[in-house]
Amino acid sequence: MNYGMIRYTLFRLMRIMAALLILPFVVGLIYKEYDSAETFFILILVMFIVGYLGSFKKPANQVLYAKEGFAITAVAWVVMSMLGAIPFVLTGTIPNYIDALFETISGFTTTGGSILTSVDGVEKSVQFWRTFTHWIGGMGVLVFLLAVVRNSDGYSIHLMRAESPGPVVGKFVPKVKDTAKILYLIYLGITLVEMALLKISGLPLYDAITISFSTVGTGGFAVNDAGMGNYSTVSQAIIIVFMALCGVNFTVYYFLLNRKPKEAFAIEEVKYYFGTMLVAAGLIAVNIYRAGILDSAQMCFHHALFSVTSVMTTTGFGTLDFDKWPTFSKMILCILSLTGACAGSTGGGFKFSRVLIIVRNARNELNYIVHPKAVKRVYMDKHTVDGTTVKSVTAYLGIYVITFIVSTIIVALDNFDFQTTVTSVAATLNNIGPGLGMVGPAGNYSEFSVLSKLVLMFDMLAGRLELLPLFVVIKPKTWRK
Amino acid sequence: MNYGMIRYTLFRLMRIMAALLILPFVVGLIYKEYDSAETFFILILVMFIVGYLGSFKKPANQVLYAKEGFAITAVAWVVMSMLGAIPFVLTGTIPNYIDALFETISGFTTTGGSILTSVDGVEKSVQFWRTFTHWIGGMGVLVFLLAVVRNSDGYSIHLMRAESPGPVVGKFVPKVKDTAKILYLIYLGITLVEMALLKISGLPLYDAITISFSTVGTGGFAVNDAGMGNYSTVSQAIIIVFMALCGVNFTVYYFLLNRKPKEAFAIEEVKYYFGTMLVAAGLIAVNIYRAGILDSAQMCFHHALFSVTSVMTTTGFGTLDFDKWPTFSKMILCILSLTGACAGSTGGGFKFSRVLIIVRNARNELNYIVHPKAVKRVYMDKHTVDGTTVKSVTAYLGIYVITFIVSTIIVALDNFDFQTTVTSVAATLNNIGPGLGMVGPAGNYSEFSVLSKLVLMFDMLAGRLELLPLFVVIKPKTWRK
Repeated sequence: MNYGMIRYTLFRLMRIMAALLILPFVVGLIYKEYDSAETFFILILVMFIVGYLGSFKKPANQVLYAKEGFAITAVAWVVMSMLGAIPFVLTGTIPNYIDALFETISGFTTTGGSILTSVDGVEKSVQFWRTFTHWIGGMGVLVFLLAVVRNSDGYSIHLMRAESPGPVVGKFVPKVKDTAKILYLIYLGITLVEMALLKISGLPLYDAITISFSTVGTGGFAVNDAGMGNYSTVSQAIIIVFMALCGVNFTVYYFLLNRKPKEAFAIEEVKYYFGTMLVAAGLIAVNIYRAGILDSAQMCFHHALFSVTSVMTTTGFGTLDFDKWPTFSKMILCILSLTGACAGSTGGGFKFSRVLIIVRNARNELNYIVHPKAVKRVYMDKHTVDGTTVKSVTAYLGIYVITFIVSTIIVALDNFDFQTTVTSVAATLNNIGPGLGMVGPAGNYSEFSVLSKLVLMFDMLAGRLELLPLFVVIKPKTWRK
Repeated sequence: MNYGMIRYTLFRLMRIMAALLILPFVVGLIYKEYDSAETFFILILVMFIVGYLGSFKKPANQVLYAKEGFAITAVAWVVMSMLGAIPFVLTGTIPNYIDALFETISGFTTTGGSILTSVDGVEKSVQFWRTFTHWIGGMGVLVFLLAVVRNSDGYSIHLMRAESPGPVVGKFVPKVKDTAKILYLIYLGITLVEMALLKISGLPLYDAITISFSTVGTGGFAVNDAGMGNYSTVSQAIIIVFMALCGVNFTVYYFLLNRKPKEAFAIEEVKYYFGTMLVAAGLIAVNIYRAGILDSAQMCFHHALFSVTSVMTTTGFGTLDFDKWPTFSKMILCILSLTGACAGSTGGGFKFSRVLIIVRNARNELNYIVHPKAVKRVYMDKHTVDGTTVKSVTAYLGIYVITFIVSTIIVALDNFDFQTTVTSVAATLNNIGPGLGMVGPAGNYSEFSVLSKLVLMFDMLAGRLELLPLFVVIKPKTWRK
């Protein structure tokens, strides 16, 4: 284990954290929240100095193996969350550190489940930091590090593989550093466009900025208790579009930027993603219309589409309390929250490409019985998916199910109802945010015991980092010579 | 597709059904239920004559491929259930044919979920037939056919593979016919021992016989509304032992009969099965004791063990209404109902050996990251599990999850609560019987719509035949030249 590189990466991250905290500090100054601004200022100073001293000397041995990439990523996310939680405690917003950590992990992992019972009274600068964590976590803080720091390519690809969602990591260009830069520029571009459109649609500037952070990071923190219900239908429609766009594999945008629309639209995962979104919204619209939830068919479709997009991209915004919808609609939303968004997007969940591989692998198995001599191959985007990837994906399903089951048993100790227990695990492991019952769109996670909160925090990190890094880190074998 | 062999097998099955119906006919005579006895008598006559005429000539082409084995098995189970439902309708016990079919499929697949709101008033001969379906389905009616009919070995192994639960089918002896005979003799032996013990423990003879059918078939139909709560603790303990024994891979008994205890106790799946059973019962006992469900710690363990065994073996008997237990206990029972019993047992569910393969495959994946050069092999009973089996098992998990999800969405249309919807699918797909909520130990399946009942029937058959045969049958490709 290359401890030198772990140390170096962590202290570099601390410097980046210091830089990121400048934004909420400025917001504090603007809104005359001087106490909080002072807190942010001190934190910036301390983190910068400590980070600078710790990462002053680059380690001699910069060689990194896959397991070290996974380990660094997991440790980095935990440390980052522990640092990011400090402002919540020091500003008095969330005095309990465990709760603050829950909120921060929920932020960075773009889960969006909150322990706050109300956000209306929270200071603007703290709210800003809260939604900004979504933006930081959405594309990945290590990918950001790669974009700004000069490193060996071997180091970079392992970090990128560990932090990026999806069964296969694509490099657009030969150098990982350049891929990371391109990713962040696309990400920033989408964010700025959404901010502008939301502002034009009538949102206050502060809301336009913070909600854009929450949207493009597919996070889900809102800046007032009314949530998205507060905004006009046009603003909501803009949010739908940007949630949907950020659940798309970012490779699509890279192809589009390079004027390769054919390649961009050939990606099967994206087609199935949008197809499923529309079909599901249609089914739910009919279901809630017939159940008399809303009088207008158009509004039924609008809210159905909002919920479907919110859940599929694992954003977790809500316009209506879907916990009150018929079971059929709730079940579809539940299942879509598990499938999640596309690989290589900012969304969470199991990922559409994995679902496709699982479905095609299952179909192969059935074909094999009918035609034992047929070759068992899984195709995707007209290419064969190699055996190792199929094996990894099926193993991933196994790890996923095991994590889900073990988490559910522990959380069940709190003795909340069946629905709350199951969906709280589903909502954190898939980085959605709200579940059903007590953790429904109108509820929150504050009532859980410390043990359950720790499990759910683990699940959020495991979900964001796609399970493997966290398990690699807790395996003693990893740390042995 | 060898239609000749399908026809031949179906008509042979009809003759067997005629023979099996003799038992409830005799019970009808004993209890002076002459109307029902007459109905059974007419059915016996008709089925025997039709079956005899239809299977008079053996088809010239007796060659069978794997897909035909699967297809015959699926068709045979559907036809068998359709025939087995007739007595329920004609005796007036369940006038609606769809409901009668549900009850029969639930019987043959050893699910044990009922559409009857009360069984106290049902005639003895009909009750007998109802529990007898469990016994017939437990070991498999085609295995029975193999044991009594002279057939080519190629025909036999395909049928046996399609009907027997588990990822790998073991032949004890070179000839499948002999293996089938040995299996049925062991099965009959266990049944007779349980009947004797239950009689000695104080049960009426009728109850001892019928409850033994339900136990060794791991079915779960009871013959009175009080269920198992009616019987003494000693009788309940006997039932625990026999449920547990019938959830064991029958290979163990074959080894024991042949005085090979070393081989018998080396089977890992069986060790994990009993280990999990005891640990889970201990956890639940502590949980319900602390929740104050019962005053006596011993009785807490007794009922916890009863429930755990009942659920793991997918029998579905209940001594207490576990729907009223704390969420932790309910969650453990829920999860154990999914893992199910051992392969090669009469129990349902996902099967312990598959769980082991999934867990070990997942562990391999993690090891692979830490040691990329390590060879990825899954071991079981100290042998390597070949790649095809691992692939089949992981594909099986995929098919299982997909079936589960699609079923849940359709059943959700009935708009029962979340818990009822999810657990009704889980309880049928895993052949358990009771779920939670409306379909809990104190509830039943009568309220569902016809569509949901059809889906749940499909799930019961899919669960009993381990998914593949039913899907092979509904694939149009199977029936094409």
